[in-house]
Amino acid sequence: MKKLILALFLAATPALSDPLPSWNEGANKSAIISFVETVTDPDSADYVTPSARIAVFDNDGTLWAEQPVYFQLIFAVEQVAEMAAADPSILTTDALRAAAAMDYHALAETGEEGLIEVVRASHSDVPLDEFMDNVSSWLDQARHPTTGMRYDEMIYQPMLELLTYLRDEGFSTYIVSGGGVQFIRAFAEDAYGIPPEQVIGSSVTSRYEVVDGVPQIIKGADLFFVDDKAGKPVGIMHHIGRRPILAAGNSDGDFQMLEFTTGGDGARLGLIVHHTDAEREFAYDREGHVGVLNRGQDEAADRGWLLVDMADDWAKVFPVAPK
Amino acid sequence: MKKLILALFLAATPALSDPLPSWNEGANKSAIISFVETVTDPDSADYVTPSARIAVFDNDGTLWAEQPVYFQLIFAVEQVAEMAAADPSILTTDALRAAAAMDYHALAETGEEGLIEVVRASHSDVPLDEFMDNVSSWLDQARHPTTGMRYDEMIYQPMLELLTYLRDEGFSTYIVSGGGVQFIRAFAEDAYGIPPEQVIGSSVTSRYEVVDGVPQIIKGADLFFVDDKAGKPVGIMHHIGRRPILAAGNSDGDFQMLEFTTGGDGARLGLIVHHTDAEREFAYDREGHVGVLNRGQDEAADRGWLLVDMADDWAKVFPVAPK
Repeated sequence: MKKLILALFLAATPALSDPLPSWNEGANKSAIISFVETVTDPDSADYVTPSARIAVFDNDGTLWAEQPVYFQLIFAVEQVAEMAAADPSILTTDALRAAAAMDYHALAETGEEGLIEVVRASHSDVPLDEFMDNVSSWLDQARHPTTGMRYDEMIYQPMLELLTYLRDEGFSTYIVSGGGVQFIRAFAEDAYGIPPEQVIGSSVTSRYEVVDGVPQIIKGADLFFVDDKAGKPVGIMHHIGRRPILAAGNSDGDFQMLEFTTGGDGARLGLIVHHTDAEREFAYDREGHVGVLNRGQDEAADRGWLLVDMADDWAKVFPVAPK
Repeated sequence: MKKLILALFLAATPALSDPLPSWNEGANKSAIISFVETVTDPDSADYVTPSARIAVFDNDGTLWAEQPVYFQLIFAVEQVAEMAAADPSILTTDALRAAAAMDYHALAETGEEGLIEVVRASHSDVPLDEFMDNVSSWLDQARHPTTGMRYDEMIYQPMLELLTYLRDEGFSTYIVSGGGVQFIRAFAEDAYGIPPEQVIGSSVTSRYEVVDGVPQIIKGADLFFVDDKAGKPVGIMHHIGRRPILAAGNSDGDFQMLEFTTGGDGARLGLIVHHTDAEREFAYDREGHVGVLNRGQDEAADRGWLLVDMADDWAKVFPVAPK
């Protein structure tokens, strides 16, 4: 009976339980909780109505890992390799040949144009439904080169807790990614509890066709929108139509999104995930091809943004530990 | 006491009250209710989980009136007239001169290019916040030329009831309009209970700028996306990422949206508002500049789409009658 009463008591007082158990106690965790309590307190001057509690999250390096390269690029390279095995005549450029050989160094040397070529070759002129199935199948069989984990298991437990905490407090949680919007939608609901309509990303043009009586969308080949850097606030206002009150990122590609979010009136929260944990994940910031963080790191303190130190702030990184 | 018991009884049995009181009894009303009951019944083979209950609505002619011309065009023309009063040197083309004179016939003669010119001149290179304020101010003072009503009062009571009914039954209700996405967002939440993030529309490019330390979005001048005809299913999959189960429109600009929606598996509903009521609203279909309905009318029966006859099916048109 005492147990039952305790259970009822705890159920009635959710504030007593820790909403962020994988975050170590410290200034960053306190600042997050204090922000959420402020904007959800009807007696606070900074109270925000539930419909305006918009929180935006970068994906690569913020919700899941992004090393050694963006996972979508690995998907694209492996798709090209598979296509080339069936039809080697598609290998018409250095970039495609590097991809088919899964030689990321050679591919990197072909520059951004080479990368776009590979993504195009792997993603273009397919029905959207088929593309989504391809991504799901790939996630089922692909494994990360150093951890051996499924890519969709390399998501950050503390960020999952933050997403759930925010949704429990009436927030809408959006992904705002430089990655492909449909690529992310293939796993975002299962991985993060974020439905397709709350994913904003880069995209190619697509077209409507009725094929054998079946109306469908075909993914095209031309870039339509690049949801990165200054494109992030543009994408947010195009898709959501109101300024978020919380933004989380990890690289300078997220700078404008944080600047735009925290530039509004009232209480705002900007948060940068700083990859400091070579042991449990990866340590990188100012250099490299992926997730470069200079300006964000230099200006975070002045702008009042939280610089989350993965090694110090996170008790756990992935939901399931690498084998 | 009897009254109280009755009130409690009614409150506990919402199915007994009519969710669509402004719809006359008949085949169309029955078909709508039967569809909603089917997809929300967990025991039905056609049950749809709440997150997939996506309903899409055209705006002009489906949720609000569109005669004598699209209301956004009236807004644009009146903005140009106001701008020209302050600075006549902006009147560099026939289309702009026609707009400043509020001569819709002369404007129509300048063709689609002329219309785009006018919309551009009135909507371009302003901060998005300022544009939204302009639309709100305009709605407050502008009155419809023949009814004398506020434009945002010329919304259809039966469609408001349908939106509410669907949301009460766990649907998400989206606008998918050929009109400008930000123009519609300025009033959609107040008028229809549809929040900005559930409005999809045509758009111009926009850009991010920090002006005097204030980060903001500036509406540009170049067309970015035309959310009409085959663009509607494209816009839906870009924004929502899943195929709706209900679509409502009124013109052939909505044809592909209805075709795409009803082309999916399971129970689907396509609905066309047919403007048959010259007395209470406007009667038009196969001819004119606005809301032309040929293919939809010809194919509705074969495709199982409901052709809603405003004069017959609707007991009421506007929430507030014209004066």
